Amino acid sequence: MDFDAMFDAQLDTLREEGNYRVFAELERRCGEFPKAKSHDADAPDEVTVWCSNDYLGMGQHPVVRQAMKDTIDQCGTGAGGTRNISGTNHHHLLLERELADLHGKEDALLFTSGYVSNWAALSTLGSRLPDAVILSDELNHASMIEGIRHSRAQKVIWKHNDPEDLDRKLARLPANAPKIVAFESVYSMDGDICPMEEIVEVAEKHGALTYLDEVHAVGLYGPRGGGVSEERGLAHRITLIEGTLGKAYGCMGGYVTGSASLCDFIRSFASGFIFTTALPPAVAAAATASIAHLKQSDTERQAQRAQVANLRAKLDARGIPHLDNESHIIPVMIKDPVKCRMLADILMRDWGIYVQPINYPTVPKGTERLRFTPGPLHSEADIDHLVTALTVLWKQCALAHAVA
Amino acid sequence: MDFDAMFDAQLDTLREEGNYRVFAELERRCGEFPKAKSHDADAPDEVTVWCSNDYLGMGQHPVVRQAMKDTIDQCGTGAGGTRNISGTNHHHLLLERELADLHGKEDALLFTSGYVSNWAALSTLGSRLPDAVILSDELNHASMIEGIRHSRAQKVIWKHNDPEDLDRKLARLPANAPKIVAFESVYSMDGDICPMEEIVEVAEKHGALTYLDEVHAVGLYGPRGGGVSEERGLAHRITLIEGTLGKAYGCMGGYVTGSASLCDFIRSFASGFIFTTALPPAVAAAATASIAHLKQSDTERQAQRAQVANLRAKLDARGIPHLDNESHIIPVMIKDPVKCRMLADILMRDWGIYVQPINYPTVPKGTERLRFTPGPLHSEADIDHLVTALTVLWKQCALAHAVA
Ligand SMILES: Cc1ncc(COP(=O)(O)O)c(C=O)c1O
Ligand SMILES: Cc1ncc(COP(=O)(O)O)c(C=O)c1O
Repeated sequence: MDFDAMFDAQLDTLREEGNYRVFAELERRCGEFPKAKSHDADAPDEVTVWCSNDYLGMGQHPVVRQAMKDTIDQCGTGAGGTRNISGTNHHHLLLERELADLHGKEDALLFTSGYVSNWAALSTLGSRLPDAVILSDELNHASMIEGIRHSRAQKVIWKHNDPEDLDRKLARLPANAPKIVAFESVYSMDGDICPMEEIVEVAEKHGALTYLDEVHAVGLYGPRGGGVSEERGLAHRITLIEGTLGKAYGCMGGYVTGSASLCDFIRSFASGFIFTTALPPAVAAAATASIAHLKQSDTERQAQRAQVANLRAKLDARGIPHLDNESHIIPVMIKDPVKCRMLADILMRDWGIYVQPINYPTVPKGTERLRFTPGPLHSEADIDHLVTALTVLWKQCALAHAVA
Repeated sequence: MDFDAMFDAQLDTLREEGNYRVFAELERRCGEFPKAKSHDADAPDEVTVWCSNDYLGMGQHPVVRQAMKDTIDQCGTGAGGTRNISGTNHHHLLLERELADLHGKEDALLFTSGYVSNWAALSTLGSRLPDAVILSDELNHASMIEGIRHSRAQKVIWKHNDPEDLDRKLARLPANAPKIVAFESVYSMDGDICPMEEIVEVAEKHGALTYLDEVHAVGLYGPRGGGVSEERGLAHRITLIEGTLGKAYGCMGGYVTGSASLCDFIRSFASGFIFTTALPPAVAAAATASIAHLKQSDTERQAQRAQVANLRAKLDARGIPHLDNESHIIPVMIKDPVKCRMLADILMRDWGIYVQPINYPTVPKGTERLRFTPGPLHSEADIDHLVTALTVLWKQCALAHAVA
């Protein structure tokens, strides 16, 4: 059987649709973020990264780097085992304590990534709570969708950010079925933020467990970086808060926080937690340092907000349409996979601006976009350069301008 | 609804069965492996780790540590994005090239862990190849089982390491269905090694794709550490070889290698590859250094083999029964979860010997065991101390001795 031919046929379909992905090969340069060396033949040697999830540049912060290097010297490079079999290191527990404190919860549980934390936690809750029903916002992230799918629990999709629809759907379910309401605070592709209080109220009314993904919010919102749930004073009303250490915290890893029983339950039953090598102690130590720093420093968040407002205002001044939202994410809709890639290619090649075209399956077909994430380390000149480039391209491509 | 009560009830069941897990809290000490500081109240301050998967101590190797630290200074602590969205770093590609070369394959694809590589690759193959059937060895690892389950492809379980059973089961399937034979080289709980050539022959006869997990073999077997498939000259006959960077290589991460089309296919369609922050460049660089080192150095492997033979011989001399196998893993069967934990607790508390009791769900109930993994850095004195301790305990507990 010719397996390669079968693979190639499906890859060809992707190519025909314009959805075949080409990864930009970068070399981050510590101290120069968001500048990076590019290894792509068609790109200038140095580019400015405009689509990083290292939202605050913590990945190059001296305190974070030093914690990681010190821990390598102290404990070595890897954990050497699964959490159960020799892989639990003191640094994992310190991090779990820091995370529980961040969200004001009893306990926290560390995973190798945010993806795995969502997948493992939801699949465990959905499969081990008898007759559980998971109510999932229709725009939830792939990691949640796959976790729910894997659980084989009954799944009910509710309209994106629509507490009334959630209410109606909860009302239809048997009173004694355990219900799990799964949603995100900041949806990273549109940058919109959920009506958290309304959702929580609806969930409470129906006695549902609330499962909140704060992946694109931790470190960025709330006075200590505890996310939108901290900013809005709602963390204590949410059963489980999930987050990542790979975005604003500049490292890698994921976690859930909640009651001691909840964390112990997932710890004890989640295959994706149990059967995998633990995070390197040095990564855990770096993440702990990053969280601790952003708990007491608001400088990075303020500077980020200023640059986000700045870019928005300048795009508006040039009539370049972008999705309006309350977050730090600025999506510019292109709505065509081929054009989206073409624009990104020109930005990279002619302007040294790296923004990844966001195509299917990350977003639905027909909603392709460029997605900018300004940070505290983008300079005024970087922003002006980006706006100039987009203005030139907008004219050249004769794409529709926003109506004033 | 009282969710905590539901969680507690299931945790209580685990406790009653003796299957509740308590993680040993360690602090690895670079340069002193396999010694570690223990943070557990009941344990001596310093313990010897006897169950690490850092099989060769590469996690403290100066070359590996240096590569990781240098790359932190060069690129920072995290990748800053998913592979598609700004997260592909030059160091990821260097590692993928090193891995393809290691297994003599066209290409390789890096994941955040071995767990995720198995889960994502098998779920993608099983779900995207129409009418695929996955034939899974009955003792395959949880990560493969979950990947197969997630794919919702038809699954056929064949008897552990039994090519004849596989042959019979393949023969029953429709000739034109894509068939995937999934198995491991070294099964880590029993330490047995598969009859690889026979399995490959059966698979070839039926035109099946072969999917081989070499997680407990890479770095350890074969003249360049390419695993059992390299040692037996079979790598070129296996479609996909999967491995980890978290065990013998002392870091973290997982991968698959195979044809360019195969890797591109998984790269393009696997949710668990696409929607997650990439491995820190520094971890990739450390893994690359570790692989490169073990490609040209056989010293660590030879020393490990010597210590494995040494421990086996000394256990035999004292009549302490252990599973016979060809690998580096020495399981001592206890067959009771409570006794298994009790023995491990005494070894830790009274002897400073840390070996994790292996209970359900890692192994089937009734097959609980202690599992020793001697490495090149266990000294003669360490081995003697372990054997003395076991001898004393064996007498005290009056457990059955092996029949001579
Ligand atoms: C909403 C959301 N949840 C979870 C994840 C996964 O987190 P991680 O990158 O740590 O795997 C992502 C993105 O990667 C995300 O966008
Ligand atoms: C056979 C096997 N495959 C895969 C894995 C997962 O690899 P990783 O620890 O890199 O997630 C493990 C153990 O953890 C394993 O024993």
